[in-house]
Amino acid sequence: MGVTVTTNYQPLTTDCLARRLGELPVLRRRLGEDVAAWQVREVGDGNLNLVFIVEGESGSAVVKQALPYVRLVGDSWPLPLKRAFFEFNALQRQAARAPGLVPEIYHVDDAQALIVMEFLTPHIILRKGMVAGTIYPQVARHLGIFMAHSLFKGSDLHMSTRDRKRDLALFADNVELCDITENLIFSDPYFEAKLNRHTRPHLDDYVAKLRADRDLKVAAQQMKAAFCANAQTLLHGDLHAGSVMVTPTDTRVIDPEFAVYGPIGFDIGMLLGNFWMAYFAQAGHEAHPGVRDDYRNWILATAAECWTVFQQEFTELWRHERTGILFERSLFEDQGDTLGSEQALHHYLQSIWRDSLGFAGVEMHRRILGLAHVHELESIEDPARRAVSERRALALGRHLAVNRDRLSSIHDIHALAQRIDKENLS
Amino acid sequence: MGVTVTTNYQPLTTDCLARRLGELPVLRRRLGEDVAAWQVREVGDGNLNLVFIVEGESGSAVVKQALPYVRLVGDSWPLPLKRAFFEFNALQRQAARAPGLVPEIYHVDDAQALIVMEFLTPHIILRKGMVAGTIYPQVARHLGIFMAHSLFKGSDLHMSTRDRKRDLALFADNVELCDITENLIFSDPYFEAKLNRHTRPHLDDYVAKLRADRDLKVAAQQMKAAFCANAQTLLHGDLHAGSVMVTPTDTRVIDPEFAVYGPIGFDIGMLLGNFWMAYFAQAGHEAHPGVRDDYRNWILATAAECWTVFQQEFTELWRHERTGILFERSLFEDQGDTLGSEQALHHYLQSIWRDSLGFAGVEMHRRILGLAHVHELESIEDPARRAVSERRALALGRHLAVNRDRLSSIHDIHALAQRIDKENLS
Repeated sequence: MGVTVTTNYQPLTTDCLARRLGELPVLRRRLGEDVAAWQVREVGDGNLNLVFIVEGESGSAVVKQALPYVRLVGDSWPLPLKRAFFEFNALQRQAARAPGLVPEIYHVDDAQALIVMEFLTPHIILRKGMVAGTIYPQVARHLGIFMAHSLFKGSDLHMSTRDRKRDLALFADNVELCDITENLIFSDPYFEAKLNRHTRPHLDDYVAKLRADRDLKVAAQQMKAAFCANAQTLLHGDLHAGSVMVTPTDTRVIDPEFAVYGPIGFDIGMLLGNFWMAYFAQAGHEAHPGVRDDYRNWILATAAECWTVFQQEFTELWRHERTGILFERSLFEDQGDTLGSEQALHHYLQSIWRDSLGFAGVEMHRRILGLAHVHELESIEDPARRAVSERRALALGRHLAVNRDRLSSIHDIHALAQRIDKENLS
Repeated sequence: MGVTVTTNYQPLTTDCLARRLGELPVLRRRLGEDVAAWQVREVGDGNLNLVFIVEGESGSAVVKQALPYVRLVGDSWPLPLKRAFFEFNALQRQAARAPGLVPEIYHVDDAQALIVMEFLTPHIILRKGMVAGTIYPQVARHLGIFMAHSLFKGSDLHMSTRDRKRDLALFADNVELCDITENLIFSDPYFEAKLNRHTRPHLDDYVAKLRADRDLKVAAQQMKAAFCANAQTLLHGDLHAGSVMVTPTDTRVIDPEFAVYGPIGFDIGMLLGNFWMAYFAQAGHEAHPGVRDDYRNWILATAAECWTVFQQEFTELWRHERTGILFERSLFEDQGDTLGSEQALHHYLQSIWRDSLGFAGVEMHRRILGLAHVHELESIEDPARRAVSERRALALGRHLAVNRDRLSSIHDIHALAQRIDKENLS
């Protein structure tokens, strides 16, 4: 992978940050003119970047800077700095398309690969909230709205096709991060890739079985083909509970550096898959069996509401903001054929749903058998107990990916998830 | 639409061509050093460009130059000169991917929007051959090979994904020609678009019926959505019998200026749709009913062979040249699961087939009800007689577009075409 080398690029440190960014009037106004009083701490716990929180006398900010390699792996895995450019461009579009649901941006510097943005407080990462068993009554509605608006409005259903094609070309250059998605999500878990890991020895038998699971491997590659070719809209590209910051009343989606044009169902499926993993993880976090049943129900209700709200909002947008080149009003409403446009909407939603289930299924595999795992499961310390939850998640994921054409309702899926959780179906 | 204005651009004329191009050593070597002896004639009968044939003492060439507007319509419809750039880039890739099936390029000039290439002789345009009733025994095999190789090798099944994404971005800028495809093929025929025309008054009732044909309008828009989003491969983009030059032994595909990334089935469907229109046109060209039955059979056999050869070649490429990031051998053959890759191939071919039928159906509508018609039908002088052929083509096209998910064999389609042709089913 080719790294874009920027001559003046220097990683920030807690020591130099205030000096370097204190030169910017826009930040001094936000944080306080007394730069010497800025408190800086590094908090990056993600896989790829440096992240600092800066607090001054009159305000605070987060500074996110790309490193020229994958933080999780080290400099043996170079990664271009231009991903900060794509993250900024995605954030900008999301802010316009789904206002109030992403952090506000204060400053961008392409050469330094850094973005200075709103410090969200007292928000925490949704994953951590789900390990703690905290209920967020608004998160499903907010995420449903975020997905519907950002995904609809980045597509040919809404944008001018010239702008859409320009954005397609722009984000097509986010090759290296796309490459990570393509390999880590869709391929590595299905063969002996070097970076794979799983709970050993408990899941060894599942891994062996997976290698011979022809239908699942074909399904995973079909989803990869859809991800690579079906450029329906600008995706967040990494929309899971680790990219969502929450309070009981506020929700913000962060970290869209994997943004690329792809199928609408990719963001939705990844999000749902992560809810379903969190659901199965509950068995590993409860003091006694059943103690977390209410929370289990909340997670499933939240997943269902995400989809329902997405569907409702998408429907509203379809009816009232369908200004692009697809399913033009001149062919339907303007000819008095409103039901024609509703028929097209139903077909379109059905195909998004089918894709979403496929992507959810592969997401649930790569998070348990691939390189990057999820906190909800990883934080179950006893490997035998963790493997119980993981095995259930894999069973549902397999069912979804292979049968995605034949599953019509999220409630049927949740009934199945509950049986898998209680009866260890596999 | 914005026209790219190139300062030095000057349209060629028969008078100035030899003087201007005679400066190029590469052309003098081809055509003869005695530039004054070059014979130049303008032969452009297409919709968009200037085309000249130049013959010198030692050789000949075709000069194709883009005009800053649509030739068919005039300067009220501007069109950027950069389409020559896309045509050249597509020709270059096709020559590498399907050797011997496109004209050789001698010289390119982006600023003048011109391409100098091989003068194909004694080739004629396949459409004209099909009006004359000429049999071309090789054309089906050549076109099947052309489609399989050019379409497979421009996709993530074969290319490096970095190169594929670079090409996706490059051709995404071919916006204006894409816009023509999007409007003229998928939308205009389905509402009262200004440029539409049809055989009047004979087809007035069909046009009225079409406005109320909800399923067909939805199908046409679904195909448009697939064309716009599903960037599977680099398409020719205008692959019909007017873009194919033939002799009994040689076949060349020309004019790829509409090249863009899109679904594999687009090229195939457009080509098949044009064969099927040529089939129904025979009734308008025979002296007595049935005189052209053999030729009818040849056209259907040719369409079937195009698809069969495509499928065979695509299968060979899938088995032996699947070097891209999709359906990787590491998941199938390398794990001893060859049937897994065959299963994936069958699903993939089925989805290409389904798309092809949808695109064929819309092509058969736009060529009869939209702006650009086909010579096979237009050359039937008696409008009543022409309308009989056109109505049959529309009937098959409607059936294909709406039922594309449920038609498994080209032979079933040909049996239906024969019934429509004989019994006037509609």
